[in-house]
Amino acid sequence: MNLNLVANTIRGLAMDGIQAANSGHPGMPMGMADVSAVLWTKYLKHNPHNPAWPDRDRFVLSAGHGSMLIYSLLHLAGYDLPLDELKKFRQWGSLTAGHPEYGHTVGVETTTGPLGQGCSNAVGMAIAEQMLAARYNSEAQKIVDHFTYVIASEGEFEEGISHEVFSLAGNHGLGKLVVFYDQNFISIEGDTHITYTDDVRKRMEAYGWQVQEVNGHNHDEISAAIEAAQAESEKPSIIICNTKIGFGSPNKEGSHDVHGAPLGEEEIVLTKKNLGMPDEKFFVPQEVRDIFAARVEEMKQVEALWNTEFAKFAQANPAKALEWDKAQKGELPADLENKLDIFEAGSSMATRASSGKVINALAKEIPYLVGGSADLAPSNNTYMAGLGDIGKNAFEGRNFHFGVRELGMAGVMSGIQLHGGFRVFGGTFLVFADYVRPVARLAALMGVPVIYVFTHDSFCVGEDGPTHQPIETVMSLRMIPNMTVIRPADATEVAAGWVAALENKSGPTALCLTRQNLPTIDRSVYPAASNVKKGAYTLWQSGEGNPELLMLATGSEVEMTLAAAQKLGGEGKNVRVVSMPSWELFEKQDAAYQESVLPSSCSKRMAVEAGTSFGWQRYVGRCGVMVTKDDFGASGPFKVLQEKFGFTADNIYAKAKELIG
Amino acid sequence: MNLNLVANTIRGLAMDGIQAANSGHPGMPMGMADVSAVLWTKYLKHNPHNPAWPDRDRFVLSAGHGSMLIYSLLHLAGYDLPLDELKKFRQWGSLTAGHPEYGHTVGVETTTGPLGQGCSNAVGMAIAEQMLAARYNSEAQKIVDHFTYVIASEGEFEEGISHEVFSLAGNHGLGKLVVFYDQNFISIEGDTHITYTDDVRKRMEAYGWQVQEVNGHNHDEISAAIEAAQAESEKPSIIICNTKIGFGSPNKEGSHDVHGAPLGEEEIVLTKKNLGMPDEKFFVPQEVRDIFAARVEEMKQVEALWNTEFAKFAQANPAKALEWDKAQKGELPADLENKLDIFEAGSSMATRASSGKVINALAKEIPYLVGGSADLAPSNNTYMAGLGDIGKNAFEGRNFHFGVRELGMAGVMSGIQLHGGFRVFGGTFLVFADYVRPVARLAALMGVPVIYVFTHDSFCVGEDGPTHQPIETVMSLRMIPNMTVIRPADATEVAAGWVAALENKSGPTALCLTRQNLPTIDRSVYPAASNVKKGAYTLWQSGEGNPELLMLATGSEVEMTLAAAQKLGGEGKNVRVVSMPSWELFEKQDAAYQESVLPSSCSKRMAVEAGTSFGWQRYVGRCGVMVTKDDFGASGPFKVLQEKFGFTADNIYAKAKELIG
Repeated sequence: MNLNLVANTIRGLAMDGIQAANSGHPGMPMGMADVSAVLWTKYLKHNPHNPAWPDRDRFVLSAGHGSMLIYSLLHLAGYDLPLDELKKFRQWGSLTAGHPEYGHTVGVETTTGPLGQGCSNAVGMAIAEQMLAARYNSEAQKIVDHFTYVIASEGEFEEGISHEVFSLAGNHGLGKLVVFYDQNFISIEGDTHITYTDDVRKRMEAYGWQVQEVNGHNHDEISAAIEAAQAESEKPSIIICNTKIGFGSPNKEGSHDVHGAPLGEEEIVLTKKNLGMPDEKFFVPQEVRDIFAARVEEMKQVEALWNTEFAKFAQANPAKALEWDKAQKGELPADLENKLDIFEAGSSMATRASSGKVINALAKEIPYLVGGSADLAPSNNTYMAGLGDIGKNAFEGRNFHFGVRELGMAGVMSGIQLHGGFRVFGGTFLVFADYVRPVARLAALMGVPVIYVFTHDSFCVGEDGPTHQPIETVMSLRMIPNMTVIRPADATEVAAGWVAALENKSGPTALCLTRQNLPTIDRSVYPAASNVKKGAYTLWQSGEGNPELLMLATGSEVEMTLAAAQKLGGEGKNVRVVSMPSWELFEKQDAAYQESVLPSSCSKRMAVEAGTSFGWQRYVGRCGVMVTKDDFGASGPFKVLQEKFGFTADNIYAKAKELIG
Repeated sequence: MNLNLVANTIRGLAMDGIQAANSGHPGMPMGMADVSAVLWTKYLKHNPHNPAWPDRDRFVLSAGHGSMLIYSLLHLAGYDLPLDELKKFRQWGSLTAGHPEYGHTVGVETTTGPLGQGCSNAVGMAIAEQMLAARYNSEAQKIVDHFTYVIASEGEFEEGISHEVFSLAGNHGLGKLVVFYDQNFISIEGDTHITYTDDVRKRMEAYGWQVQEVNGHNHDEISAAIEAAQAESEKPSIIICNTKIGFGSPNKEGSHDVHGAPLGEEEIVLTKKNLGMPDEKFFVPQEVRDIFAARVEEMKQVEALWNTEFAKFAQANPAKALEWDKAQKGELPADLENKLDIFEAGSSMATRASSGKVINALAKEIPYLVGGSADLAPSNNTYMAGLGDIGKNAFEGRNFHFGVRELGMAGVMSGIQLHGGFRVFGGTFLVFADYVRPVARLAALMGVPVIYVFTHDSFCVGEDGPTHQPIETVMSLRMIPNMTVIRPADATEVAAGWVAALENKSGPTALCLTRQNLPTIDRSVYPAASNVKKGAYTLWQSGEGNPELLMLATGSEVEMTLAAAQKLGGEGKNVRVVSMPSWELFEKQDAAYQESVLPSSCSKRMAVEAGTSFGWQRYVGRCGVMVTKDDFGASGPFKVLQEKFGFTADNIYAKAKELIG
């Protein structure tokens, strides 16, 4: 098999695509063309004609700026990505976006670009594989058995997320994770040594990885290393690939000039000549077509065999097969809401605590629900009792121990979700959502339905002080496109919020939960908590028709707002309290519903939330009144803080009275 | 010297403070009491009577949850922190907040709590020390010569930021950085091994550190290790301290029960008995008082000696002494604005490019201005030409190479700023402000005046696609309390924006800059760009008096909004364009100025910004019109994207016309 020709074809496509776009990163695709050629023609298990085959190997181009590499590979391998799309690289409406995007281009397993995140997703995929294997493989049929391959760059190994997830991967003994580390010692600012001189071998050994090092342009060395990595089942593997960035370019190879800019027409001609390729744009030799065509045929048979095995498995284990099917589809039990704990009025508990009860109830109903916390399970109430822990050689459990690694946790969660077979949640303190944010943004962009359990959701954290007290955090999540934020007012809204989170299959959901106790609202008196799915609803009104005043509140502030409103009602005022757990769900309702809750004619409006005022003007207007908190909090018992910061029924009542006169 | 007694006194204070608060983390202070006792009585160079002495050693309790440890030490050492304050631990108004807060408690060098951030600040402090030493030390006088000591926990070593900054510290050869690693194998979820099994020795060696390991309760071993760390001048040092969490507690030592909850009255009695201490609350033996009193006397003399040396230095090097003084105070040159490049009307350049010119002009005027980028200097235009690079044994330079480590960069920046002697800026793409955010929040909380240079500030990034296109990012920064965001409209606003950033000494500033070219506004026709300091100003109005329509715009959208307005003006409409580079600066103006720019009587308002609409209702109201972008972007040339997303003068004109009828 002429692997040189395959590699040089990839180099040609990459150079030509980037030149046509006059934008992009040719250095990496040219440097890693050999590794990719070996992997994709000899080892990668996938069927380009069925990209959804559950037991395919996962391939993650974590160094997403080298996108022309994966587009070239997908095209050559036979995915539905015509050459014409490669010619439209980075253009409006093309399938070849600047960075690989999940859901946009077939065969792209995750969206990459922000360095290191692909690595975290890959760790999640490798964990999911082990978990599925532990659940479904039998002695007779091994229906889950695939590798996860990653191409990562030096910049990614500089990023903190690489530490978090590689440390976790080593600890968990993810033997089927293989990372190709593209070591060319070139970064945007020049030689990597100006700021980065890690002994990568030693570092990865410290995490418990198998480490190999190869000449990234020697196909035999690459093959041998892949086979050794596959053979190592107890440790994840890194193959340090010593490459030349921009390999083949007579004047730019090995220079940072070739990292992030087209080579230029002239240099492309020289490079193709140097590589022994014809001077033809987007050239694909027949020999290369034949190589990949043969590989597709082979892979079709591999999948056919798998299908046979799966059929046998299903016949022998009908219950498991049904479970597999539901898990793959993410099918929820009917009537979920009614299966959750009924929280009795009069009781009092933190929403993190009711969430813990709900999680445990849900876990019984949804066997593929898995989750954990970034070392805060006892505080986040995320532990599913009696359902086992996940760790090295123990993947049948349901509870993760993500460690103090918030960003890594989120990346792993996305990877598990992208892999398929599970619904995953992960917890930390709300204030640490800032750490999660870079990954949450990509989850939102991809539409990955992970669930973040963010507890300790206001300054009512209390004694821990301002470093641990969210002020702007809830609002900062609301503004991420395609993120759904739910801040429930009591235990009953928590249960409904969890159902809404599970029913949201098109993006991430963030549940914001209190540390402190809240009374459970008596749903025999007030409207049903199932209204949470509409995002906002009239909880109570003292009169009929259009109210004089709209009082909007979320979470822990609903209780005190209601108390203030009832006092105003007692004085003959017609005021309405709107519980507004989710702006995003409310915005999805039709105009008539929105108008019924927030009549546009009612311009006297106030908002109560133990967080920033920023953004509330959307609902209360420029002249609305807000009982909010715009500066940082302080250390002290939460009831003292509530008093000092004006979060009392009395203060809300006074502000409301001032507004309606 | 009875170091056992010192350590046990610390343990007693920690237990008692936390018990009184009924909240806190006793395990760590009790575990690290021995290490702290050795360090503070024998090695730490500081003068509690002059906490601002510039050449003091810096001590960072990175594991900030163990705050009673530093409060006990500060109290015993003789800082202005009376025992009464320790008795009010975590209470409203006390000096002993839940986590140590810079500016709140004397002697606290940085605010800690979010794990790992203190380590990043400490790396910045150690860099600042080396840089000052390179600038000011002479053969005759070594006026800068101090260590930076850190106490860090296992959780911090799990966090990604630890990787970023320890890798950088090793690369830079920070020989005067000493990290005590509190290794007790206990985390909140239990045994650390459930998720964390790094070979820490190997990992740190991979970064190029000196690694030692001691029994963290053996004073001789601790002393020897500190001396060996001090002796190692080419490498940062880690001393792995094997400790028992909650040392001395008969029933809780070594258990995660003692990590984050009071021991309970009964166990405290047993523990004190076990440690041979009297059963007395907040007990400090006279012997311990004497030890610290003697140390203070010693340290006063050390500082006095330093003052003498400094006086000699100042006499021998008057110019340098003046420069030192200005740098310590952060004194800005008079008339800075006029010293910056004058950008000519008619030219066209990206605001990142004009920022690059401004930075280079400022660098000449302000010798203590230093900065860099997270491996994006050529894109962020942050490089100061001819002013040298910073790296191992090369600390006289002005340009950092932070590497692909955005969060670490920000933490190091805060540390440099906290250390004193410099004003620091750091660059990355705006979309990666999400990585910076956890540190930026603490910078805002502390009031640290770092300057973030965030370029590529909208979907006009273009071809790189949605992973690199900020949508919600500018707004997400605006909502952080005490963060000042400036998004200039052209080169002249960039220059004024930089001046405003430098003049802001009470918190961080984020400059948001374009990738694409923008025309330079002709300031002989339009009002002066120095109006930037007011946050918003009337750029142009077609008529007199109150306008029919207010058109608010920022950054790259000012140009097209102006074009639309001028078209409306040509049709006889009285419309006003307000350039609004900084919400925060505008909100600081008096009501009269705000009213003069945005007359409250004018309710027809629109906002134009290439980012989310979220938040703009604050100025345009519930019924305002917004030309904004609420979902993720796309890959393509930016002019195509502007067209598709409605960011054209024509579309703005049409929307405005619709609004004013």
